[in-house]
Amino acid sequence: MMEPKDFLHHTGEWLKGAGPHAHIVLSSRVRLARNLTGFPFTNRAQKQDLEAILDLMKQVLPGIDLFKGSTLFRLQDLDTIDRQFLVERHLMSHEHAANPQGKGLVVSPEEALSVMINEEDHLRIQVMQSGFNLDGTWQAIDAIDNALAAKLPYAFVPEWGYLTACPTNTGTAMRGSVMLHLPALVMTKQMDKILSAIAKLSFAARGFYGEGTQATGNFYQISNQVSLGHSELDIIQNINGLIRQIIEQEEQARQALLVQNRSALEDKICRAMGILENARIISSQETIDLLSMVRLGVDVGILSGMDYRVINQLFIMIQPAHLQRISGKKLTAMERDTKRAQVIRDLLRSSRET
Amino acid sequence: MMEPKDFLHHTGEWLKGAGPHAHIVLSSRVRLARNLTGFPFTNRAQKQDLEAILDLMKQVLPGIDLFKGSTLFRLQDLDTIDRQFLVERHLMSHEHAANPQGKGLVVSPEEALSVMINEEDHLRIQVMQSGFNLDGTWQAIDAIDNALAAKLPYAFVPEWGYLTACPTNTGTAMRGSVMLHLPALVMTKQMDKILSAIAKLSFAARGFYGEGTQATGNFYQISNQVSLGHSELDIIQNINGLIRQIIEQEEQARQALLVQNRSALEDKICRAMGILENARIISSQETIDLLSMVRLGVDVGILSGMDYRVINQLFIMIQPAHLQRISGKKLTAMERDTKRAQVIRDLLRSSRET
Repeated sequence: MMEPKDFLHHTGEWLKGAGPHAHIVLSSRVRLARNLTGFPFTNRAQKQDLEAILDLMKQVLPGIDLFKGSTLFRLQDLDTIDRQFLVERHLMSHEHAANPQGKGLVVSPEEALSVMINEEDHLRIQVMQSGFNLDGTWQAIDAIDNALAAKLPYAFVPEWGYLTACPTNTGTAMRGSVMLHLPALVMTKQMDKILSAIAKLSFAARGFYGEGTQATGNFYQISNQVSLGHSELDIIQNINGLIRQIIEQEEQARQALLVQNRSALEDKICRAMGILENARIISSQETIDLLSMVRLGVDVGILSGMDYRVINQLFIMIQPAHLQRISGKKLTAMERDTKRAQVIRDLLRSSRET
Repeated sequence: MMEPKDFLHHTGEWLKGAGPHAHIVLSSRVRLARNLTGFPFTNRAQKQDLEAILDLMKQVLPGIDLFKGSTLFRLQDLDTIDRQFLVERHLMSHEHAANPQGKGLVVSPEEALSVMINEEDHLRIQVMQSGFNLDGTWQAIDAIDNALAAKLPYAFVPEWGYLTACPTNTGTAMRGSVMLHLPALVMTKQMDKILSAIAKLSFAARGFYGEGTQATGNFYQISNQVSLGHSELDIIQNINGLIRQIIEQEEQARQALLVQNRSALEDKICRAMGILENARIISSQETIDLLSMVRLGVDVGILSGMDYRVINQLFIMIQPAHLQRISGKKLTAMERDTKRAQVIRDLLRSSRET
């Protein structure tokens, strides 16, 4: 049985920095909301209902090949830092961590697959993959969904599709999202225009650290808002079309920056690296902004000998629960800023040595 | 015969970063103003008077051992950049460079000794040494002054001392000055108090780049204002007393910073180094501020493997005429900012490799 901290020296599959358009797209994600017949929705469920669902999952999962090696955590067995740690790894939501009673989380060894049990819906299944690969991600989660459907009594009505606790999710109950790194569109001040187009097309844009977070470090997680009235594949194709356009615009903006302002860009990128390699105290906001510049430096070939995996890993490692698990103890905000600087220096140094 | 650019790959004796209290005192300097009988003061002199003085010096200097290897430049033979270059090396004043007609400059091979000919006075003799060593500097310049006095008709009146174009210099016509690096007093906000005490005691505080410049990079050049009514040795002892007190206060302020705020100080110093080693575009003001932090890092043992000579040399090399002589061509302000960043990176890298 794995413990959350076992993930520490491990980079999630979705962070490996490979896959199509990895220079702009960090990762692709699909999640499905599923509920089980015979149980009230979680917001109306009793403790024994939630426990029964957890027990059912514990019983069913070992029989499904696609869950081989996965761990089912009962959130009430985990302390606050461990729960926060799993949120920081994008394996579950803040809301899920906040009130652990009767809740569970299933995580596959490579962290590509996770299932929140008894969040807003009975099951929230998530698959994440590296790069721009919503199609592959959809195929993976569809197979998992089919395997689960064969063993579980899904609440499904032909006219409406999958039933969900919140009516806005009903239908496919699917959300596809893509995490984009768009520094050039931000620097050339085109992002507001793009965000308003995204909103008009009924897509949502969120920050790196999930729902309710601001876009930070020039990362934008773009997802569909509408899940009803279209097939899953149609929704995926719609997202793909939008993302392709944004990728193209970011590429053009990068070219324009390189042509018109290469030395200023080099300066900004090299200084970012210099500060990350040398700071002794650093906030998470400053780190994210500097890492964004370093990632851009790798993207456009200004920085060499630097690997996306290390940068992506840093985005995860610099978060509070990760820093505390690395230290093996609780840290004050000031201690975290010092530990963060040390983790960054160590990781950058080791990546340069290899 | 040397050319100004021959000084390029050479660090002035006064910049070698050695000598007493080198962790706080960059250099000690004494200058003497001397005029010759039989010639009007330079502000009233005709072209032929100035030429005659230049010729006289050209004739006299080869006979004085202490000037062995020295070069006499006629400023009108030098272009604007070469003249600016000599100003940047602290070998002559801005005023001397601005109007070259009939003016000269003598420089010894190690740049410890220089003589401006036909500046405000016929001769302005200067000796600079590394560290806190006004006594040694005084002895050196006194010997040079005696050797010149033996060959030249100095304007001297027993009641008033040496006659000078400006009455405030009459008497000893001596100014002693010490260049101090006082980052901890600045950071702990004690500098205003000290500067007002300095002014009350009739001393002057100037910046690194000489008369009329602001203190920058936490450097303060402190000198006597009064040259009349005291012997040279008394004046030197007065300056020494003041400087010893300031050194002690700076040492205390450094200790206090290290005890109370070591990690913030380390962070500031290491970031400064990181930026200097990585920037691709950098202004002289930012460079000076960062170099000041790096010097403090060496002073207090936070940075190792770094030599004062390199830092001191950088303060000189990053100036406009130096950057243009290194490039071998005229540079725009933007080109200088780029060249400056490159010179800094190269020098820091080579110093780390040795």
